[in-house]
Order: sequence, then structure tokens, then C-alpha cells
Amino acid sequence: MQEDFEVTPWDVEGNVDYRKLVEKFGTKIITDELKKEMKKHAGGDHMYLRRNYFFSHRDLDRVLEDHSKDDGFFLYTGIGPSGPMHIGHIIPFYFSKWLQKKFDVNLYIQVTDDERYWTGDGTTGEIDSYAEQNIMDIAAVGLDPDRTFVFKNKEYMGNMYEAAVKISEKINFSVASSVFGFNSSTNIGMIFYPAVQMIPTFFEKKRCLIPAAIDQDTYWRAQRDIAEKLGYHKAAQIHSKFIPALTGPEGKMSSSKPRSAIMLDDSPEEVRKKVMEKAYSGGQITKEEHRKKGADLSVDVAYQWLKNLFMEDDDRLEEIGRRYNSGEMLTGEIKKILVEKLNNFLEEHRKRKEENGEELKRKMMYEGELAERMWNRKIDLDQ
Amino acid sequence: MQEDFEVTPWDVEGNVDYRKLVEKFGTKIITDELKKEMKKHAGGDHMYLRRNYFFSHRDLDRVLEDHSKDDGFFLYTGIGPSGPMHIGHIIPFYFSKWLQKKFDVNLYIQVTDDERYWTGDGTTGEIDSYAEQNIMDIAAVGLDPDRTFVFKNKEYMGNMYEAAVKISEKINFSVASSVFGFNSSTNIGMIFYPAVQMIPTFFEKKRCLIPAAIDQDTYWRAQRDIAEKLGYHKAAQIHSKFIPALTGPEGKMSSSKPRSAIMLDDSPEEVRKKVMEKAYSGGQITKEEHRKKGADLSVDVAYQWLKNLFMEDDDRLEEIGRRYNSGEMLTGEIKKILVEKLNNFLEEHRKRKEENGEELKRKMMYEGELAERMWNRKIDLDQ
Repeated sequence: MQEDFEVTPWDVEGNVDYRKLVEKFGTKIITDELKKEMKKHAGGDHMYLRRNYFFSHRDLDRVLEDHSKDDGFFLYTGIGPSGPMHIGHIIPFYFSKWLQKKFDVNLYIQVTDDERYWTGDGTTGEIDSYAEQNIMDIAAVGLDPDRTFVFKNKEYMGNMYEAAVKISEKINFSVASSVFGFNSSTNIGMIFYPAVQMIPTFFEKKRCLIPAAIDQDTYWRAQRDIAEKLGYHKAAQIHSKFIPALTGPEGKMSSSKPRSAIMLDDSPEEVRKKVMEKAYSGGQITKEEHRKKGADLSVDVAYQWLKNLFMEDDDRLEEIGRRYNSGEMLTGEIKKILVEKLNNFLEEHRKRKEENGEELKRKMMYEGELAERMWNRKIDLDQ
Repeated sequence: MQEDFEVTPWDVEGNVDYRKLVEKFGTKIITDELKKEMKKHAGGDHMYLRRNYFFSHRDLDRVLEDHSKDDGFFLYTGIGPSGPMHIGHIIPFYFSKWLQKKFDVNLYIQVTDDERYWTGDGTTGEIDSYAEQNIMDIAAVGLDPDRTFVFKNKEYMGNMYEAAVKISEKINFSVASSVFGFNSSTNIGMIFYPAVQMIPTFFEKKRCLIPAAIDQDTYWRAQRDIAEKLGYHKAAQIHSKFIPALTGPEGKMSSSKPRSAIMLDDSPEEVRKKVMEKAYSGGQITKEEHRKKGADLSVDVAYQWLKNLFMEDDDRLEEIGRRYNSGEMLTGEIKKILVEKLNNFLEEHRKRKEENGEELKRKMMYEGELAERMWNRKIDLDQ
């Protein structure tokens, strides 16, 4: 049976059926009940959950249980520095910020400057430079500088290698290749990488929660296989949908196709042009036809972005959807709304970057409370 | 065609035909001419070369050429800390000491506390403890503490990871597995190890000379494939024969079979008992038969050890060989000579260990001139 979409850690192609994906991966849908639990514990709501942008999970219920028992948990996410960041890259960090604040937890961010070299995504010089830029963008998110530790694998490996040695001994080529799709021509750095990626899930004895797009789920299979043997928890996850590319609902944004994405350094005018000219529309070709038939919201990028990411106001979203779907609102109008939202978001992001970026970066990497503690310890799984 | 011996980096079994081995590996015999060159440059001779204990090489001629042109070279060797050391382990370090002194070169010693864990040779606690013991024995050899750097991979990886990332990207699973015999059940740490082992060959831009038993040769095939692409030299090697196990000429000594080996901490009485009772003899079973037929020197462990390792005096060795071979000398007599030589060697070794071991260890690891320089640099292949 041929499926009409393909999701691996490397590629997302086709129009994604998320229910099928949850079945395929064996994850769980975030139910209304679980959302209510989240809201209760967080003392508030987040639109990403309300709108089912984060829609699937593993052990999120247990994370909440640990939280309620004061066992606590911690957050872990990462970034592969192979280019400038786009909207799709930064969104999970904003969600992590909310989680960190609401649950008062540590957040670890791995910058995979080793893995990006192994996948052939640039020279070390290029990757090193993107790492610095990307971390500046992460700094602009406004994470708690004393509870966030951002580390570059190449720089921090001295503190992690003992753990890497222990973890890598537990994973054989067969398992690693089935998870990551390795073969005999894969370089031995990349083959080692699953161990490196896994280390931060053992930074604390608490449960680790990983917010990421659902295509990352398979990555953690090996972690879930060995964690308990090592005396740790299986990594919990909260999965988002993919942010559709500007150019269409099939697949996700990519820095290597900058016209398909809104980059964090796009000027307001560039954003306007990209959205107005490139954003895939669910509307009809002629105005007359549109007024008659209305728009297909399910494939309309402007509507989907507003719904999943940028339009906080439920009533206003509902109204926009209704009017656009009926043909009362034109494609140009909804795109304008998105342009405004995007430019506000980017302006605030850049403002924080300019004002506090350097200082927050320094704190999250070296001088903040958590960072300082992390530089003063060796990660040793026996602790 | 079935060969009657098997040599891989992991196993040496059977009575080894060294000429065939050189053919099989594609290395070169150290000719009389090359020995003369060595003697000229070193300003002296070493019995290991004279007696063909070190008998094969790769690019040793080029090493001497570089030396004569003042380009220089450096030495690299290592130790896998999975048990206490025996005579067979320490001999290469004594040869390295001679090379270091005669050619006035740096020597790097990698302690593979990562690899020993990946091969399942102990808990991290056991391996860490053997590492300390082994380094004390290396200290007892009396290497130049300002030109020798002994480092444990787990401890020094912070300074090497950048290089590991670059090297591992150049080696794929297919090459690594053909060199090391990996398969799908090999753990991903071990698969990464060829890159780690290779890093020190790039510690300097000079040619690297590796003294080791010939079974280690294949290890360096991948290094020789990629070195020049990285702007470095192919690693040169000088290969020894295997030291036959005490219990027979087939195979080599092993710490896991302590009765087959003379351990560095064996007491004089233990040495005497092991040699007298266990050493495989080429002599005849009865005294009468022995007087008539004499001994087979080629399989007699006492004679082979004296010849290859402990009897400096050519004339005396020749005399012993003649008398033993003719039946004039008995097995018990030649064994006594070996016992005396061994106990002298071990006594001097232990004396140096007790007197200066701790200080030399500290210098070679952290405080000597070379060590200090190495701790202050990141190994980056672009330098």
C-alpha cells in the first residue's frame, strides 16, 4: 500500500495526514483532557495547544504527574546550524519559553555543529558561523538566562564524552541504522551521532521533555530503549505539526529554499513581497469565482499560519475563517493580515536581539546560573 | 587456500610466518641497508633491530629522510587499559624511549579508555583504575617527561573533538568495518573509534612514526587513505613480531591468561616459577634424548625471549644458541638465564616506578613541556 506522504527525520514530503502519522509512529494524540491538565498545571493556556499545532506526545501525562509530585522535569531541544533560521526554526523555542516559564524548569539547547558537518551541510567555518548567528536568534526569544544552557557540541564535548562513551556502547549499528537510515556509505561520525544527541536527555535524573516536530520522534526510539537500563527516564515528547512552506501545504519550510520560508532577517518589505506573491492560496483564481466558491482553508498557507501560529484571538480567527471560506474575504486581504502579524513578530524578535542578544547569549552559554553549573560538571551517567 | 595462521587487530593465533605476513599486509621488510641508515642517524644500534624483532615497516625510509632534512618526525603509540601490563605491553615503550632519545622527538601515548569500554573489557571503574596503573608503568620506562604526552581519551577529548569530527566525516562504515571487522551488532562507539585512534597522527604536521606489533598495521589503512587529503603525512610504521606466550610459540601473551605472560608486578619467585614450570621448551623430553638431539630453538620460548628481547650480548647469545641446539646446554640452564634477565629487567623497572613514577606520570600527563602545550591547544586539522 503506497502512502501519499513520507516522513523521516530527513524528509517531509507530501500532504501530511497527522492521524495516520500518530498511528505509524505509535505516539498519542493530545486529548482535550490532557490539554485541560496542561492548562491547570501551567496556570494558563497556549494557543499552540489550543489550536492543535502541538498535537501529539509521548509520556506528557507522566511529565505532568512528575510535576505535580514535585519530582519536576526538564526541557531539551536543539538546533542544527546549517543556515540562517526561519520562522519554522524559532517557533519551538517560543513554545519552550512558555513551558519553561509556566513550569519553572531548566532548558537545555544542543547546537549540533558536529552533526551538521557529518551530514555535509557546510564547511566547519560556515557551520561555526551559523552556530553563532542561530544562538543569537535563540537569545532573542527571551528564555530564562539562568535556567537555560545553550551548548555547541564541539565546544562542550569535553564535559560530555564520558557519557557519550557509555551511551554509544549501548547502541549497535543495526539499531542506529534502522532509526536514522544509515548504510555502509554513512560516515562513522554520523553513526556516532545518535549517542551525542541522546546525552542531554540524561543531564538530570528527572524526566526530559522534548518539544519538536513529529518527524523527530523516531530519533528517540533508541533513547527509550536504553534509558531505563541506565537508571534514567525514557524521554517524553510533545510533537508539533510541520509548518507548511510558504509555497504550498506540501512539506515544510527549508533554509535551503529561502523563497519557501520567512527568514528571521527578512525585512518588512521582503516579508510583504514573499507573502503576497508566493504564499500558496486556497482561494479561487478569479475574484468572481472566489466570491462564489470561497477559499479552501485546509491548503491556504496564510490561513494555516494564522491559525497555528500567529492569530491569538480565537474570535477574530473564527471570523476570518468564516469570511474567507465563504468568499467574502479575498486572498489579498488575509495575506495582509498575515504580513502584519509576521512583521510584528519579527520586529519584536529583532528588537530583543539587538537590545539584549549578546548578553543573553553569553549568559545562556557561559555565565548564567545553569550554564556555570554545567561547565563545572562532567556528565557521568553513574552520578 | 587455508592459511595456518590468522592475524587481525584482535587475534593472533597459530605459528606466525612473518614473511607471509609482510606480503599479506603489503608492508616492507627492514633491509640491512635500512638498518645501517637507522644506525647512522641514531648514532647507535638497538638490539631489537639487530635481531629483527622489529622487522617490517611502512615509510621508515621517509622518516629517516625527513629527519636528515631537519623536517623531523614524531612518535605515537598507545595502550588499552584493560588489565595489568605484561612484558609484551611494555617492550614497545622501551623501544620508543630509545627512538625518542636518539632522534630527539616528541612521543604521544594514547590511553584508550573509551575503546576498552566499547570492546566490553571492563566497567568504567575498572578501566579507569587500570589506566592509572598502566600509566605508572609507562612512567617507569623513563621517557623524556618534557617530550612525552600521555593522555586518556576520555579526559583529553575536549581538546580533540574538533579533529574527531573532521576525521570521522572522511571514513564511512564500509571502510571502517573492513579494517576493524565491524558488523551490524558492533556498538556505535566502537564504530567511531577508528577516528579517535587516528587523531594523534595529526598532532603535528611532521611525519608520524608508529612502533607497534605488525597486527596493528591494518588499523592505519584508513589513516593512510585520508591523511594526504587533509594535508598531512601518511602514518609511518615500524612493526615488531609478536612476543610468544610463555606457554608456547603459538600466539602472543595475554593479560587475560596471566599464566601465559610475565606480568610487570610478578615477584622474582613468581617469575622463576612461571619460567621454570610453564615456559614452552624446544628441548627433548629426557635428558638423554636432549644430549643426543639438542633443542629446537625456533619454538623454545626461553631462547626466543633472550634472542629478541633480553640478551644484549651477541657473542653470549650465539654461544647459548650453539650449546643449547647441540644438546650441551639443558632446558633448565637456559631458563635460569632468562629468569635472571627477566628479574633484572623487572627490578629496574619497578625501582624507577617507585622512585620517580608519580612525578614522571604527572609531568607526562599535565606538567611537562609537551603536556602543557597540548593542554593549551585545540587539535584542529586546519592549523
